[in-house]
Amino acid sequence: MRIVHVNGEYFPEDQARVSVFDRGFLFADAVYEVTSVLDGKLIDFPGHAARLARSLAELDMDMPVTEEEILSIHREMVTRNDITDGLVYLQVTRGAVDRDFLFPEDAQPTIVLFTQAKPGLADSPAARTGLKVVTLPDRRWGRRDIKTVQLLYPSMAKTEAKRQGADDAWLVEDGHVTEGTSNNAYIVRNGTIVTRQLGEEILHGITRRAVLAFAREAQMKVEERPFTVEEARSAEEAFVTSASAFVMPVVEIDGRPVGDGQPGPVARRLREIYLEESRKAAI
Amino acid sequence: MRIVHVNGEYFPEDQARVSVFDRGFLFADAVYEVTSVLDGKLIDFPGHAARLARSLAELDMDMPVTEEEILSIHREMVTRNDITDGLVYLQVTRGAVDRDFLFPEDAQPTIVLFTQAKPGLADSPAARTGLKVVTLPDRRWGRRDIKTVQLLYPSMAKTEAKRQGADDAWLVEDGHVTEGTSNNAYIVRNGTIVTRQLGEEILHGITRRAVLAFAREAQMKVEERPFTVEEARSAEEAFVTSASAFVMPVVEIDGRPVGDGQPGPVARRLREIYLEESRKAAI
Repeated sequence: MRIVHVNGEYFPEDQARVSVFDRGFLFADAVYEVTSVLDGKLIDFPGHAARLARSLAELDMDMPVTEEEILSIHREMVTRNDITDGLVYLQVTRGAVDRDFLFPEDAQPTIVLFTQAKPGLADSPAARTGLKVVTLPDRRWGRRDIKTVQLLYPSMAKTEAKRQGADDAWLVEDGHVTEGTSNNAYIVRNGTIVTRQLGEEILHGITRRAVLAFAREAQMKVEERPFTVEEARSAEEAFVTSASAFVMPVVEIDGRPVGDGQPGPVARRLREIYLEESRKAAI
Repeated sequence: MRIVHVNGEYFPEDQARVSVFDRGFLFADAVYEVTSVLDGKLIDFPGHAARLARSLAELDMDMPVTEEEILSIHREMVTRNDITDGLVYLQVTRGAVDRDFLFPEDAQPTIVLFTQAKPGLADSPAARTGLKVVTLPDRRWGRRDIKTVQLLYPSMAKTEAKRQGADDAWLVEDGHVTEGTSNNAYIVRNGTIVTRQLGEEILHGITRRAVLAFAREAQMKVEERPFTVEEARSAEEAFVTSASAFVMPVVEIDGRPVGDGQPGPVARRLREIYLEESRKAAI
């Protein structure tokens, strides 16, 4: 049975609970991070800690513990749950107070962490076969740069994608792809990697930042701009990045093959570089 | 201490908890209703039960118990918490399962109810003085007709309104008012009540439906269409409706008085009719 962290204490998973008055439960007034673990080590922890601090600041929420303490809780979770490859999920809420739309002045933030074991996480068969995606309208709220738990729409979209026989959805706004349901989206056209620029429309992916830096170091051309569904369908390659999928090729969009329908060389190369460098830097 | 209902059991409020794996907590995958209580009786319970069923159906979520059982739990909550005037809050989530964006097939819905005592709820001083509102951009998701707990933006907007010295915010999209943070919005122009038509942009207010029916019965003219911020600022009257505020006059928009800056006759009359008829029909 997993061990779950709640507000400084460790519980068996079936006893890990929060108040029904928690604003994470009543108002989706909460932010989260998911950090990958490979060989028992945390991948890009500083990136996740920095984004957590930014999400909290954007919502005028307090950081419940120091970054150092968050790191030590992550490590404790990896050890107690004997995670070799997997994920550490962290959620911080504004806390539990009587229900009121107004932000409370006196709430103590709630912090929850749990793990998911994912043996062979870096060696997923999907990385060799590639993902199929469908495009769906992007109907999320306007501040997707804040990593909140308002995940109902991404959840609906991913479920709809599966229903249509695909693996995931790419979300589309004003004719342009914003991102995947839980990943950033990329295409390759004329040898150039194209991905939407940062803004309030997309999550500021930790893996995105690292992958783009590695791509530039490797002299690949990168353009950060919105791209259309038509550009995606006629691209040479497509792929997504996320903290738990790393770099994952996309081989089909709306039922039509991307390029030759096989994972492309850019995605493959970036996945190799990302995994190699991330493992080196893991803590 | 309040008594809270969780999945068929009654707990003291400090022991009312849900799993950290509950999808209401992790994905905002949950819907809710708030029913007013006046003189110990439920106001428009059938309306709330019908909307709950609709919200659940839109999200492919199961109704955890029958409408009859929901009514009997509401009554039990009113009795156990000795509520004369106040609210019964009900939340249904998709249930607790290991975290995954895909809707689970096997989850048992979670049902939570708690009460809030509001002595003199129907006699609020704000009904005599009126509310001040500011306009703010509407940045919520695209399905506001489903009453989900994705309430972070309304919560941010109400907090921002208070910071600006107002009581609430009216949300604006493409130059038109959608609704308030937790109420439907109305203006009166040339003696006609104007309020946005139903659609995915606004909540299908239970109180809205009742108030519009009473207005029509009383031979008042009603137009259901989007209205602009400029129309609102130059209106003769403005008001909001919600299950817990009933009909509440708005006397100031963005720092400028509406009409003569006093609650208007249409809002006052509708509030009287609504309270009188609702009390009669309360169960």
